[in-house]
Order: sequence, then C-alpha cells, then structure tokens
Amino acid sequence: MTNKDPTAGRTRSEGSGRAARVRSRKQPVIERSPNGPLAGRFNPLTTGELERILESAYHVLETVGMEVMGDMPPAALKMLEEGATLSDHGRILIPRSKVEDALALTPKSFTLHGFDSDRSIEVAAGRPHFGTAGGAVSILDCETGEYRETGLQDVYDMARLVDTLPNIHWCYRSPIARDMETVELLDNNTAYSLLRGTTMPLGITLGSVQNVKNVTRMFDLALGGEGRFSETPIAHMVQGAGVPPLRFAYERCIIKEEAIRQGFPIMIASAPQAGATSPAALAGSVVQSTAEALAGIVYANTVKPGCPLTFAAWPFVSDLRTGAMSGGSGEQALLMAAVAQVALYLGIPSSVAAGMTDSKLPDAQSGFEKSLNIALAGHAGAAMIHESAGMHASLMGCCLESYVIDNDMLGNILRTIEGITVSDDMLSIAPIKEVNIDGAGHYLGESQTLELMQSEYIYPAHSNRNTIEEWKEAGSKSIVDRAMEYTKNTLENHHPTHISNEIDDKIRQAFDIRLSKEAIGRP
Amino acid sequence: MTNKDPTAGRTRSEGSGRAARVRSRKQPVIERSPNGPLAGRFNPLTTGELERILESAYHVLETVGMEVMGDMPPAALKMLEEGATLSDHGRILIPRSKVEDALALTPKSFTLHGFDSDRSIEVAAGRPHFGTAGGAVSILDCETGEYRETGLQDVYDMARLVDTLPNIHWCYRSPIARDMETVELLDNNTAYSLLRGTTMPLGITLGSVQNVKNVTRMFDLALGGEGRFSETPIAHMVQGAGVPPLRFAYERCIIKEEAIRQGFPIMIASAPQAGATSPAALAGSVVQSTAEALAGIVYANTVKPGCPLTFAAWPFVSDLRTGAMSGGSGEQALLMAAVAQVALYLGIPSSVAAGMTDSKLPDAQSGFEKSLNIALAGHAGAAMIHESAGMHASLMGCCLESYVIDNDMLGNILRTIEGITVSDDMLSIAPIKEVNIDGAGHYLGESQTLELMQSEYIYPAHSNRNTIEEWKEAGSKSIVDRAMEYTKNTLENHHPTHISNEIDDKIRQAFDIRLSKEAIGRP
Repeated sequence: MTNKDPTAGRTRSEGSGRAARVRSRKQPVIERSPNGPLAGRFNPLTTGELERILESAYHVLETVGMEVMGDMPPAALKMLEEGATLSDHGRILIPRSKVEDALALTPKSFTLHGFDSDRSIEVAAGRPHFGTAGGAVSILDCETGEYRETGLQDVYDMARLVDTLPNIHWCYRSPIARDMETVELLDNNTAYSLLRGTTMPLGITLGSVQNVKNVTRMFDLALGGEGRFSETPIAHMVQGAGVPPLRFAYERCIIKEEAIRQGFPIMIASAPQAGATSPAALAGSVVQSTAEALAGIVYANTVKPGCPLTFAAWPFVSDLRTGAMSGGSGEQALLMAAVAQVALYLGIPSSVAAGMTDSKLPDAQSGFEKSLNIALAGHAGAAMIHESAGMHASLMGCCLESYVIDNDMLGNILRTIEGITVSDDMLSIAPIKEVNIDGAGHYLGESQTLELMQSEYIYPAHSNRNTIEEWKEAGSKSIVDRAMEYTKNTLENHHPTHISNEIDDKIRQAFDIRLSKEAIGRP
Repeated sequence: MTNKDPTAGRTRSEGSGRAARVRSRKQPVIERSPNGPLAGRFNPLTTGELERILESAYHVLETVGMEVMGDMPPAALKMLEEGATLSDHGRILIPRSKVEDALALTPKSFTLHGFDSDRSIEVAAGRPHFGTAGGAVSILDCETGEYRETGLQDVYDMARLVDTLPNIHWCYRSPIARDMETVELLDNNTAYSLLRGTTMPLGITLGSVQNVKNVTRMFDLALGGEGRFSETPIAHMVQGAGVPPLRFAYERCIIKEEAIRQGFPIMIASAPQAGATSPAALAGSVVQSTAEALAGIVYANTVKPGCPLTFAAWPFVSDLRTGAMSGGSGEQALLMAAVAQVALYLGIPSSVAAGMTDSKLPDAQSGFEKSLNIALAGHAGAAMIHESAGMHASLMGCCLESYVIDNDMLGNILRTIEGITVSDDMLSIAPIKEVNIDGAGHYLGESQTLELMQSEYIYPAHSNRNTIEEWKEAGSKSIVDRAMEYTKNTLENHHPTHISNEIDDKIRQAFDIRLSKEAIGRP
C-alpha cells in the first residue's frame, strides 16, 4: 500500500527550506528553480569529434568488451541471454544496438528528493547542480594547519555545515568515518549522520547487499514507514559496477543490482586514471571511460529497464612523472567537460567530478584549480557535479572551511551558468537614451538599476569586496579567516531537527548508532 | 630608409628566448606557436542574442551617438566630414554603414613584437594570449601582509619577474610609479623600466602627445635607430578615447591620434561600470560598451585607415550595494566573455580584462575569482586578456607573488584552451585492444603513455601535487610560500641584459631615468 502524499511522515521544522535560509542570511541570492539554469554553452568537442568518440566507444564494446572479475553476476548472465556475447577471451561483447536500446530507456531526467522537498533537485542533462563527494581519509584543521584522521563526527559536522550553504545541492560524505570497526557500522552510521545533518538530497556508497537493505530501511523509518524511500528516494547511489580498464566486478555488480531494486537512482561510475588504467591520450581516456559507463548503463537497464541513472564516466588524470592522481589540472578539466558533453549529446543526465584540487590547503592553488574545473564542467552541461566543494589533496583530504569558501565560488559559477538575459528590457535602449540625451549622465538613480540590483547580481557571503583601507581596519583577514569564523559559529549552533526524537529513537533501536544524542544536540 | 632586417640593432643575450627559458626550468612545457590555440568553444550568447546586441549598439550610435568633452578633436571633425552627423544635442551620430566600413578596414590580426622576436605574439580573434595590466596604487608585501604605496622600482621588479613566467605573453605596468613627480617623468620612466625589465611585448599608457613622441624615440633608440619602432612595434597603447557613457574626450583623443601615427597598435578601450556609467542590465552594459568601442574603431580608422587595433569594450561591474567596482564576480566573467564573443563574431581581435579579483590577498578567493573570469574570457575567444596576473583589490592593488601563482593558473587555463586532440592515434583503439585483450591490464608501460607524457600534459611550476605526507615533510607550505621563495630568488638574480650598456647610456643621456644603474644590475 502506498501513501498518496509522498511528503507525509516527514517532520519538517518551520522555515527549514531554502527560502527561509536565504532570508536569514540578509543577503540577496538569486532564487533558482529546482531545474537549475540551462547549460551547454561550452563545447570542448565539435559534433564531429563527439561522434568519433562515441563510434570508438561502441567499437570498443563490440570488439574488446568487458571482462568479468569473479563470478558472473546475475544481470551479466541476463545480458548474455539478451544479445551480448562472450568472446574467445571470455569477455562480454556488447553490440551497439543493445547500448542504443538502453540509452533509449534511460530517463532524460529524474527527481532527486530532499528530506525537505523544497530542496529536491531535478537531475537532467544540461542542468548543473553541485554536490559533495568523497572520500577523504584526512581532514585539515585550519587552526593548527595540520591534517588528522577522519571520523564519524566529521561526517555529521560536514553534513550540517553543508546544510547551511545554498549553492551546494546535495550531500555525500567527504570524510570517511575511519573510526567505525566494520563495513556495516560504517555504512549505517554514515547514512545516519548524513540523514541527521541535512535536509538536502543525499548521496551514498554501500559495501554490501545487506547494507543496501539496511540503509533503505533506515530511510524508510525516517520518511514515515516501509516503502517510503522508493516513493521519494532521498539519496542516490554512488556505485561503480566495474574496475577499469573495462571490467565488471562481481561484488560491485550485485550491490548495484540491489540498489536499483530498492529504488536508488544510480550513478554509473567508471573512474580510470589516464596513463594507468586508461590510455594516456585524453581522447582515448574519454573513449574508454565512455565505453565503461555505457556498459554500466546496459547493465542497469538489464536489472530494471528505465531505472533512473547518471552517466558517470570519470576519466581521472595521473601525473605521469609519479603515477599519482592529479585532480586539479587543466587536463582534468578538459576530460570532465568532454564526458559531460558526451552525455548532453546522448540526452541523458551525467555525473562528473570537478573540484579535486591537488593543493593541501584552501589557498590560491585550490581556488584556481577548483574554479577552472567546475566552471568548465558546468558550462559543458554536466547534470551533477560531484567533488565540487571541500576537497583537497587529490581527494585524499577535506577541510570544513573549504565547503564555506567553495560555496561562494559555486555561487559565482552558477551566476555565469545563468547567463545573460537578452530581452528588449535588458538591452536597455530606453535607459541609455534617457541617461545620455536629457538625463543625469549616469545610471545610479535609474529605476532599472534599483530593480535589477537583486535579480541580476548575486552577493557572496565571505568573499571580500572592501577597499584596502576597510579590509585593513577589519583585521586584514583572508577568506580562510572568515570561513573559520562561520564554521565555528555554525557547528556551535546548527543542529538540524527535521528528524523527530520519536523517529530518532526508532532508528537508534534498530541500528547501532555511534553518534550520541549529545553529539546531535537532542535530549 | 627602412632596414630590411627588422631584428637588426637588437642586442639579444644568448639563449634569452622562450625555448631556453623552458629548458632551464627542467620541467616539460607544451611549446606553443605565437598564434596561440584556437578558442571560441564557450558561447555565452546565442547567435540571435549576439545579433540583437549588435543591432542595439548600432541603433545607439545612430540615435544617441557620442558626446564630445572639451574641444572637437581633429579626427572627430573629420568623421563629421565623412558621414557622421551632429545631433540637435550636439552629439556625434554615427551611421551603421560607417561602422561597418571601419570594421572592414580593421586588420583581422597583427603582430605585437617582443624585443626578443621569439616572444612576439600574433594578436587575432579567437587566439587568446595573457598579459598584465594596471593600475595598482598599492602593492602587497607578502612578508608583512601589508600594503604600501607603489613606486618605480616596483615597475622594474614586476617586469623582470614577469619576464621569467612563460604563460604571460606581454607586460604592462601594474604598479603605478607614484614616486615620479611629473607625468613626463612617470611616462618615460615607466617605459624605460618595462623595456629594461623584459624582452616580451609591452603595453603602455601615456599622458600627453609629447610623451608619445618621447617614448617612441626611446623605443627607437633601444631598437637601433629612428623609425625602428614603427617597423616592429614592441608596445601596444592602452588608451581609451572616451569617458563612459558615450563620450569622446578631447585630451584622450589627441593622444590616441599621435599613438596611431607613431605606429602603436591601439587598444580601443571603453570601460563603463554597470549601474553607474552603463546600464545595470548585463545585456545593456554590453550594448553600450560595444557602441563605445565601435565608435572608437571608427575614430581610429578615421586617423589611419586599417591601423592595428583591438576591440576593447570593458564592461565593468559595480557592487550595487556600495557602488564600488567588483572585478571578481560571475557577472564580470559573463560580461567579458560576452564582449569577447562580440569581437569574435565581428572577426576582429579583442582585448578584455579578466583576473581582477576583489580579494586583497593571494588567497582562495583570489584563485577562484581569477580562474573563472580568465577561463571564460579565454574560451570565448578573447585575443588579449589583460589583468590576467598579479592584480588584487579590484585593480587597486597588486602583489609580486601573485604573478608567479597566476602564471601556474594561466598554464592550466591555456591547456584547456588547447583542447582535446581527436585523431585516430589519440582515440587509442589500438592501445585499448592491446592492453585489455592480451596485455598487462594497465597502460603504465605503453609506448603511447611515454610518448604523450610531455605533449599531452603540462606540469605546473609551483602548484603542489605531493601527497599529504610529502607536503608535510616539505614544510606544509602554501602556494604563497613557494611563490615567495621564487620571487625573492628571481629578484636577486634576474637582471635582463638585452639592452646593451651603450644603448642604455644613450637612453640615459636623452631622458631623466630614475632607475639607477645599480638598480638594474649594470656597471
């Protein structure tokens, strides 16, 4: 029996929505629809180049195909019954027609729900949204300038900090709760900390089929009863099906199958490193990761035709001098923009990774690497931009203050994606005539100027626009100094209460929750 | 009598070219042609929107026209004889046909010469190059964290520092020599300090007709004799003709006329602030600044048909809460990308301003604001990107270390403008088959990987890619720390010697040069 009102059962605190947060900030922010602005103005590839890349990916799937690591998972067997073939080398060869059928079944968009329905987002090709991703094993303490190991408290702190940042649209745990002894504890407590910390849509990765069932049950409890999660899935699943190059892995496949059955939208992830697990040539890396993601899309549609998913070819960059990952480079920006363009061309939503600075600190390097990567991915039309805030050290570290700083950056980038409105009014012939022919010679008092102040312009929260003198009088602070103040204040005061104590008790009875009631600010 | 070899008379130190500098760095850098990569992959406006903006700009020139501040300058009188008309309000109305004629005369590209001819650049629509601009009245001392007034030594220091940075392609003085008592001293000494400090192309602004003549003479002396500058102009002139909104100013116009006669390529600058001296609507600000730049192009072609110039509509952003300029915003990025696109559509080279952070420090704000603005301007096809390094505080400040940091950023951005090479080889079908079907299962030892290591990837100079452990062992430094070391070392050791002592003596005899011989490291 399904309940007709999908929001029933949720306890929402008064004024917990985006509009309320915006109001409380006392700074104008351009209100955006859940659809987001329309992107696709940046085209790293020509149409001809795009088609060559896709032809190559199809060719790779037909002639090289996918290896299977471990046992043959159920949906792989089914793929073989339904048109895929096994090569002499034991690899699964996937005909182009089968990929095209899967693409035709793939939804052009889907809703990723927030616990607060005002924060739900529409995931669609060419409509960029920004979120966090993982997985950092160290976290920078800006007070001491040193990194320490991450733990469960960091997951909760990160979630409730991000909860207050309007340009971040979904929350996945960046820090890994390394203090959890088992994968079950890790998965359950990570899910709980995110659920508890924010009302925005969530992202999650789970380590076993059973954990998928468990976490779905936890989300059902939070949403008001069995089956509620599948009606309004408040989390998407970040779950690779394979291990590059061109391999399905049994363990990952069966988790993915369960997640699809439970109603999680699935990110079809393939994350090879150019020069190591994919070709060093950027074009070749796009080809291979596209082939891998397309194979994953065929796989997902074999489990459940038409299930919501994102095309998540994530071609990573290695620094070929050392073999280590480098997430902040221009090459990385090109790769992610290219796969975003591939998905836009295919008309399906994409997930990309952008914002993975190599810097260990929230410094200028961090700023320019993140900004370049995220801006190009966004303008190329990526639907979901993961890793867009808080990350450092090529994903090995994170920093709370960086979420705050990066939120300002994301506001700037979003503004550019909104674009320039060209209309008779905005072309401003009338004000130009008025001011210049008979008028004041300036536009300061024009009615248009006052009207557009809060619709045409955004005002950042922590980026400083003072004069040198004003800035000096205010203590010569960097954006890190200002973010530290905001972070401290938020962690002291912001304990989201959208999960009622009654439901919280039920979750605590059903699961071994390691975040104490005190830690979450409840009696 | 012109000399047949335009490089004769120049004293070039052995190995002073780009290739030598690159070699000495011991890090692979992608070699670029002076033409630069082809951009235009980012299109903030649709073709329809572009055409509406241009139609509106033409309409403004025909119906509102240009006011003249002060006396009517010679070329304005000539414009009136040649098709422009005076309105009832005394404004110069310019018919569309006259603008189109001027655009047809405007060179699609021109060479901006370096004293070192290896560093000459081809200025062309859609071929981005990066340079410095001005004009800061304060400079940040990274040791103390404090700003102080700028002086002549700063101009020289900035020039010789920038001289070592491969991703900066021309040099204009960012810091203003505030210790010069007269405009003549200021202009001559600024020109001398740039000429002395770097072999790359220069940019300059001069305050009187006489100073244009004087500085041309200085450049002639440096290049080997009278008339040499006009053969290989080693500097372009940054010289607005007007004062927004829609005004020619007599004093600026006559300087511009002299500069054109002396052979300087001219940046046709119009820099209104949206909401103050142009409409608050972004589209309207693009319309007005486009109209102003087009009027300037008509003006320049009236002085000398076909003279080399850049379309430099610079629509600036005001923070409408305070009226102060804000150079780092997303709105600013959109505006500059839009005017770059206008120029690309017209087929003429553009100058834009991007990299004007509002931050007072080389911090994360600085990084993300600069990167967003420069990347979008570059991908939109701007020919010359001014203000691309070293600037702070919405152009009121600069910082030596920031040139070094920003050079790394510019390398990243340039790499994205280079784009992805899509060819049979780079699509990598052969390595994919080899590695996956019979091969090692990874690409580390592939011949393609080794071949592409230095052509497909760039390696930054100061951006850190170490692991957290390695970074900690090396002292947990930020990119500012590393840039400080580089800056200190460069200023101690790098005194360019491309001007011979004999020529230097001649310049010192002809001009009151306030940089001592000791300051420039010569006997």
